Amino acid sequence: MPDSWERFHRHLLRDESIGLSLDISRMRFDDALFERLAPRIERAWADMAALEAGEIANPDENRRVGHYWLRNPDLASEADAAWIRRVRGEIERFAAAVHAGEIAAANGNAFRHLLLIGIGGSALGPQLAIEALAPARSPIDLHSFDNTDPAGFARTLERLGDGLAETLVIVASKSGRTPETRNGMLEAEAAFARAGIDFARHAVAVTCPTTETFCSILDDLARERGWLARFELADWIGGRTSVTSAVGLLPAALAGVDIGPFLDGAAAMDAWTRRTDARANPAMLLALMWHHAGNGRGEKDMVILPYCDGLGLLGKYLQQLVMESLGKALDRDGNTVHQGIAVYGNKGSTDQHAYIQQLRDGLNNFFATFIEVRDSRPGAGPVAVPVDESGAVSADYLQGFLRGTREALSENGRESLTLSLDRLDARRFGSLLALFERAVSFYASLVNVNAYHQPGVEAGKKAAGDFLGVILAARKVLEEADGAALDAAAVATAAGPAIPVEAVYHALTHLAATRPDFEVKTGATPAEDTFFRKS
Amino acid sequence: MPDSWERFHRHLLRDESIGLSLDISRMRFDDALFERLAPRIERAWADMAALEAGEIANPDENRRVGHYWLRNPDLASEADAAWIRRVRGEIERFAAAVHAGEIAAANGNAFRHLLLIGIGGSALGPQLAIEALAPARSPIDLHSFDNTDPAGFARTLERLGDGLAETLVIVASKSGRTPETRNGMLEAEAAFARAGIDFARHAVAVTCPTTETFCSILDDLARERGWLARFELADWIGGRTSVTSAVGLLPAALAGVDIGPFLDGAAAMDAWTRRTDARANPAMLLALMWHHAGNGRGEKDMVILPYCDGLGLLGKYLQQLVMESLGKALDRDGNTVHQGIAVYGNKGSTDQHAYIQQLRDGLNNFFATFIEVRDSRPGAGPVAVPVDESGAVSADYLQGFLRGTREALSENGRESLTLSLDRLDARRFGSLLALFERAVSFYASLVNVNAYHQPGVEAGKKAAGDFLGVILAARKVLEEADGAALDAAAVATAAGPAIPVEAVYHALTHLAATRPDFEVKTGATPAEDTFFRKS
Repeated sequence: MPDSWERFHRHLLRDESIGLSLDISRMRFDDALFERLAPRIERAWADMAALEAGEIANPDENRRVGHYWLRNPDLASEADAAWIRRVRGEIERFAAAVHAGEIAAANGNAFRHLLLIGIGGSALGPQLAIEALAPARSPIDLHSFDNTDPAGFARTLERLGDGLAETLVIVASKSGRTPETRNGMLEAEAAFARAGIDFARHAVAVTCPTTETFCSILDDLARERGWLARFELADWIGGRTSVTSAVGLLPAALAGVDIGPFLDGAAAMDAWTRRTDARANPAMLLALMWHHAGNGRGEKDMVILPYCDGLGLLGKYLQQLVMESLGKALDRDGNTVHQGIAVYGNKGSTDQHAYIQQLRDGLNNFFATFIEVRDSRPGAGPVAVPVDESGAVSADYLQGFLRGTREALSENGRESLTLSLDRLDARRFGSLLALFERAVSFYASLVNVNAYHQPGVEAGKKAAGDFLGVILAARKVLEEADGAALDAAAVATAAGPAIPVEAVYHALTHLAATRPDFEVKTGATPAEDTFFRKS
Repeated sequence: MPDSWERFHRHLLRDESIGLSLDISRMRFDDALFERLAPRIERAWADMAALEAGEIANPDENRRVGHYWLRNPDLASEADAAWIRRVRGEIERFAAAVHAGEIAAANGNAFRHLLLIGIGGSALGPQLAIEALAPARSPIDLHSFDNTDPAGFARTLERLGDGLAETLVIVASKSGRTPETRNGMLEAEAAFARAGIDFARHAVAVTCPTTETFCSILDDLARERGWLARFELADWIGGRTSVTSAVGLLPAALAGVDIGPFLDGAAAMDAWTRRTDARANPAMLLALMWHHAGNGRGEKDMVILPYCDGLGLLGKYLQQLVMESLGKALDRDGNTVHQGIAVYGNKGSTDQHAYIQQLRDGLNNFFATFIEVRDSRPGAGPVAVPVDESGAVSADYLQGFLRGTREALSENGRESLTLSLDRLDARRFGSLLALFERAVSFYASLVNVNAYHQPGVEAGKKAAGDFLGVILAARKVLEEADGAALDAAAVATAAGPAIPVEAVYHALTHLAATRPDFEVKTGATPAEDTFFRKS
């Protein structure tokens, strides 16, 4: 690529006040792209303007979408703006009081641990923000219940050990109806009860308040039981864009993150990405590059490569943001499109020892997004240690691996984007997340899907509920069988007409593995396995 | 899928003594697959037999490949077998002595922390094994330097704090020449020096011994400086299959993992997967399903979904194992093929709130691998907490989400495999990793690529080295410029003929961001940015 300097120079977009630049020069698009997609770009500007004006963007749930109001309340209605300011103030005062020991554990000690109970957006955002921004010796360290794995619950509780007595628990769920979160809450409550500690004095709810038209069972519970605090969400905050709401801000503030600059950075990026000039708008450029790479059909995977330990969870966070927003069966006109972009990636240069072999030599089914943090050792850390005869330091190697890999991919016809942050601080981190939020919105407009609902997740919950019914039915049959050993077909027949034998078999196997009073006698094949209840 | 029970029943392969089963019934292959690929399957058996007999499988480095000898030394030559048994004994005795406090920190206290310095296979294997198997309150907790990010080094050191005085350091590298690992070692050494602690008394090397024909600079250093211990690797152990060598065993044993059953489980799986009957060999079945899903061209991404917190790193581990092994430009006959399979995934049901929306409704560009742990709360944990009116427990929900998602994917024409482990213990975990190792080998034979070299990684190292040269050259030009401000083109001209301006620009930007004595004056465009050295 002999003209790389000219192309780089022409295709670098930067903003010094934000401290972020985007280099699209190693994407092999040509300038006709902008013209070809001009009508779609126009639609994206219009969609965004309507969104920010408060239209119903999630018709499934009859909701507006307003996460960008959270960092610039002036754009919201007067009532929403006042609410945003009030909640932010409550978070800041609560975190300060916890740090000062004014709000303390039931035993009078300061809180030292945070147990965050939430899943999806309610877990990934705060986990990422804390990993990226919290001081290494944080005032409160983070533990999570972000699944419904009993072994995971047990392990986290064991690690906390006696520290449970100084553990603050946040339960985050808009309605309190997310089963994993509810299960985690009940498991935590039971652990506190076993330890003889008053759970209510340690528990905080992050949820939508119950009103005349909406019921959050979490809000109700927290009120009834007199929990330590409640922080409000709004129905216009989606899970995967909740990091600048109480979901992200409360845990981050407790862990010692300065949330003011984080919000300011997001607001500054929102302002930049409101410019309706595609070439001067980094979010639109990202969306256009994604469109170019995958022909607007997601034909290439998005590989996220932050060369920065602190951003090790970014790939996972973007995986949720991008895939849940864009992975849709239907477009907005009801046509079947099966859209989406697959996202994965951990961190460089570590991943060079994992899968760069394939990226460089193997399947060309991806485009890479390099994320560079220029000043990788800010603050008054120890003097950089020279690591070779030339006097190079570790940061030189990190940069060398990034630039070397970008070059090697280019040489082999693999496309890449490069995002550079001056440094990793709260402000720039806020900008980075807001950039991707906006890019996802724009891309959804380009390919005409709704980024703000998740019908497949709801369907998955329903399928899980159906299987719980099968477990229950199978249990009942075995309980009523008086100790007789039955095979799956027999249990299915007894359980009722509509239950498939295979599902019954899995339910029986599950019962035998998890219940002390159920057992399996293994036969030559699954059809010959029999199950019974011990007397 | 009305005949799902019949198909499940026919396509479930299980082994009770190993405690693992593989269900391929939700892959939509037909039985002709086995016949169609029969010649390739035969080649795979032959390749494996030659490999296990000790042929040179990595011709780039003139190496045999023998990780399966590590768990069954009887298959190795007499000399190798004696060496395997000796090293394993050394590991077990060392770990026991550390746990007993007989081998202790320089201050006389027991070691409480482990700092593992390694990258790629030298980090991921032990990290995964410890996360999956170590007791929640492990005798020694794990910290890692698995990158060359100075901010990451600083953060880990800050977290250790005064604990550095009770920190055992393992440096793992076959030759000592992996730059990230060497940098990490030097940074750790400097931190010990700043704290006034004798590094050598805390440092352990895991490396190939220097011999007449091979030089490990790590081995030499550890000898010269009198490090606490050295544990040997062999040239026939590849990084991505090193988890059953000292690389994985030493950290795992220190963290309290029982390495005997881990090795036994791997040996049992190796034995099972030596059966040259494709339908009775779970590794060959996996390889065939991968081939079926992606047409032997990697057309579908492999999504790894363990419904188990303890296996949260498995997706990352398999990403390395699969992509580094299979992502190759050339086949074994020298034809350009650009092979590989993209791998990603974290854990269920958590990921249902991240990207299952896309898997279910969006792009059909993947196949899923569900991994189930049947008994999810083994041992004498607290009684399971009922979480709803029906008396269901958290484990029922976990199983419900797995089965519901598998069903929902099937309904939408998305294929999946399901691996079930009776429980997550050292033995079954060893089996699981050995299963994937063998499946990767078989798949490589099916598509005729060499799974045991990584030419792209070597090329990446070279590219990084080239960029380090550019940094050095740019630094020299600015140092000799007497404080004059130069743009990238001018520095490139001064630095020499072969250096591209764009690379020089990145080097200058990097210097300005990381060196206190270099600065940038930002212009309107990168071409107008000027760089100078402060006097």
